[in-house]
Amino acid sequence: MNVTLSLVKNRTISASDENGINTIFDATKDHDGDGNGSSPMAVMLEAMAACTFLDVVSMLYKKRKTINEFKIFVSAERATEHPKVFTSVNLKYQLTSPDITKNDLDKSIELSQTKYCSASAMFSRSGCKINWESEIIS
Amino acid sequence: MNVTLSLVKNRTISASDENGINTIFDATKDHDGDGNGSSPMAVMLEAMAACTFLDVVSMLYKKRKTINEFKIFVSAERATEHPKVFTSVNLKYQLTSPDITKNDLDKSIELSQTKYCSASAMFSRSGCKINWESEIIS
Repeated sequence: MNVTLSLVKNRTISASDENGINTIFDATKDHDGDGNGSSPMAVMLEAMAACTFLDVVSMLYKKRKTINEFKIFVSAERATEHPKVFTSVNLKYQLTSPDITKNDLDKSIELSQTKYCSASAMFSRSGCKINWESEIIS
Repeated sequence: MNVTLSLVKNRTISASDENGINTIFDATKDHDGDGNGSSPMAVMLEAMAACTFLDVVSMLYKKRKTINEFKIFVSAERATEHPKVFTSVNLKYQLTSPDITKNDLDKSIELSQTKYCSASAMFSRSGCKINWESEIIS
């Protein structure tokens, strides 16, 4: 996999993937940035959650289930000393569906977390604790 | 740190950070996505590079140096079996500057990679090998 990053101005960075799709990063305003994008660590956390999100969505679509609304609420703790790695992540999967049971959802999340999700595996292997919970709104 | 992700449509995910800044993720077209955003693993790799990028830029700005152009070219290898974690990452920092020496740049990169960059530390601790090289265009 290849990606390229370019400094646009001040601390704004534009990243481009192999398909030419861009993602913008920036320092927060209290770190002399302009807030044109999220901070790299916020995006890293989002990417981890998006990875397991896509796993779960794909598994539910394969079972021809209906997803009306699906969110993941993520909270994370970081080390207080440099490097300020993530030490724990809590994921709350909240799904609105007329035909998916909590058991269906939990099985998909479990499979993502234990087998498929590359980003979650990297977080775990780095020493970060991952907890998850789920809620179905029917 | 808190972030929230929402499924927008099909496999397009919108993530929002604490300041309400959004980042879009999507599956690639050959994985049934619409290509509205980069894939989570591409963005995770970009976030890692953006993290060290911001470290280095901040250190060079602090020394009141001039950055005319700055890019990082990233290539990465992944495991062939699930979970397809990153196993190695190569970063090439390419800086165009009239007053920054290769030694200045290399010291900043070294400090980022060994002390400050949280994302690089997580990649390393997960077992991913990180190599870097640098080039100054004056």
